[in-house]
Amino acid sequence: MLPVALDAMGGDRGPDVNIAGALRAHRSGIPVVLVGDENKLRQPRKGVLPVLHAAEAVEMDESAARSVRSKPGSSIRGAIDAIKTGKACAAVSCGNTGAFMAAATLVLGRIEGVDRPAITTVVPRTDGGRLVILDLGANTDPKPEHLAQFARLGDAFARVVLKLDRPRIGLLSNGEEPSKGNDLTRAAHALLGALPLEFVGNVEPPHAFHGACDVLVCDGFVGNIMLKSIEATAEVVGGILRREILAHPSSRFGAWLLQGALARVRRQTAYSSIGGALLLGVDGVVVVAHGRSDATAVSGAIAYAHRCAQDDLVERIRTALRPA
Amino acid sequence: MLPVALDAMGGDRGPDVNIAGALRAHRSGIPVVLVGDENKLRQPRKGVLPVLHAAEAVEMDESAARSVRSKPGSSIRGAIDAIKTGKACAAVSCGNTGAFMAAATLVLGRIEGVDRPAITTVVPRTDGGRLVILDLGANTDPKPEHLAQFARLGDAFARVVLKLDRPRIGLLSNGEEPSKGNDLTRAAHALLGALPLEFVGNVEPPHAFHGACDVLVCDGFVGNIMLKSIEATAEVVGGILRREILAHPSSRFGAWLLQGALARVRRQTAYSSIGGALLLGVDGVVVVAHGRSDATAVSGAIAYAHRCAQDDLVERIRTALRPA
Repeated sequence: MLPVALDAMGGDRGPDVNIAGALRAHRSGIPVVLVGDENKLRQPRKGVLPVLHAAEAVEMDESAARSVRSKPGSSIRGAIDAIKTGKACAAVSCGNTGAFMAAATLVLGRIEGVDRPAITTVVPRTDGGRLVILDLGANTDPKPEHLAQFARLGDAFARVVLKLDRPRIGLLSNGEEPSKGNDLTRAAHALLGALPLEFVGNVEPPHAFHGACDVLVCDGFVGNIMLKSIEATAEVVGGILRREILAHPSSRFGAWLLQGALARVRRQTAYSSIGGALLLGVDGVVVVAHGRSDATAVSGAIAYAHRCAQDDLVERIRTALRPA
Repeated sequence: MLPVALDAMGGDRGPDVNIAGALRAHRSGIPVVLVGDENKLRQPRKGVLPVLHAAEAVEMDESAARSVRSKPGSSIRGAIDAIKTGKACAAVSCGNTGAFMAAATLVLGRIEGVDRPAITTVVPRTDGGRLVILDLGANTDPKPEHLAQFARLGDAFARVVLKLDRPRIGLLSNGEEPSKGNDLTRAAHALLGALPLEFVGNVEPPHAFHGACDVLVCDGFVGNIMLKSIEATAEVVGGILRREILAHPSSRFGAWLLQGALARVRRQTAYSSIGGALLLGVDGVVVVAHGRSDATAVSGAIAYAHRCAQDDLVERIRTALRPA
């Protein structure tokens, strides 16, 4: 069983969080190889996790295009190379998303029929179902035809991963009528309507989360803002709740009784810890984790990447994308 | 004291909700005039609220441009006309936003220096401050120079309404570095940096809600999606909490003790009931309320419109926009 390659240098919190997350995954039986500067990676017990040495690290604010050219020996590039050379089944990074995507596309290439890979995640819906959302930031200025490709990618993903026969595809917009939206979504609406998919038209954020569609297609800029807004709101609501609870002694007792419920709410709304997002459309399992990831999120992303590789996700997406 | 003109026909829930909201505002001392089909408006006690007859109603999914031409006698148009003819101090509608904006711009015109009015709202931040957000849907395909105008409008609004000396202006983006964002925001970033304002650069949604800026500038499509995502998440988190609470008898007791805290959370996160959003930049007080508004939200929007008119908001924005 090939290990998951983890870019151990990436993320806002530095290598220690990555190592802690990798060890957690390792303990649950998932093989992990760390990619990074072996002089800087300090494991609590030396040598538990194998290391692929990579002398350089891409900074979080570095230009993606430049990093690919100027840092061929980076940990990000090393994690991707490990897939290509057969040393890993998948790659995970909490580091510079742009650089990670650029390296993945350059080294692994794209699945046939895909021009633009898309960052794809799955979030829980209020009706008990799950919602696939793409793109979440790989393409900030896509053309209408790219949104149509995201629809096909999302359809294939939902059939393979969510096991839906005919996933309902929605186009994220500010209103349901086809005339609503911006120039991009109006043009994409026409294209999506012509695809052999179950296109349900424009969908607004509340309806998407309540079950109006199984796949939500959007441009990467809007998708990224939407996901970050959702995360921020869940945090803010949690924060207000904590403040209100601590303000009243009787509430404090109530909170003690409620603590189980609150923990479950946190788990269900911590979208960032679900396990990262797939870079769907590249020819390999590449999982983008949040820059703010803690050890739990890192181990979740590793587990997610491992499951996708075990499930032969890329091959099945390739097959699903082929015209019948 | 001139009344607030309420488009009594608009909104997803029909005239009764509008009338109930208007009566609530009326009871708290705010004069309201209903605009709509007098044969269809049924007040619980006849004649409590004055009615300006308008025979037509614009449907929620009707084209805005067409409605202005084809329904000059609509309730939306009537509410705006009431400002122009000196019969009302402000106009409120939960109806077709596009039609309402089109009528407002056509009949009232724009404040000097404003090409594109922007839907503007104020939401609470986690640090106790307030955040002005614009545009929330008036302009789905703005040019960079329009975002620069939104920055100036938002700056004037924050100085007048939030009484800030030098509001910090942020540009909504998917990353903090100037290179992040899409083509629109990158071009706008350069323009905003050249304005005589306290421009703090790109701001991501979580940071904006935690206090990184006082005014958040965005295009109307993204802003609308963001606000709807926030509302949806607050609802979803509340729903999960309710479900979790009811699943456990001990939690149910905890919930009873916590009910005060939960009610306060609901109030603090019910962004849609804060009182609607201003169409900032038109020459009159025009408040766009949510299509889903209930009576509380309608009366909140009326109270907000009335306060803006009493405060002479438009005149003060006009002054604040004039070059020093």
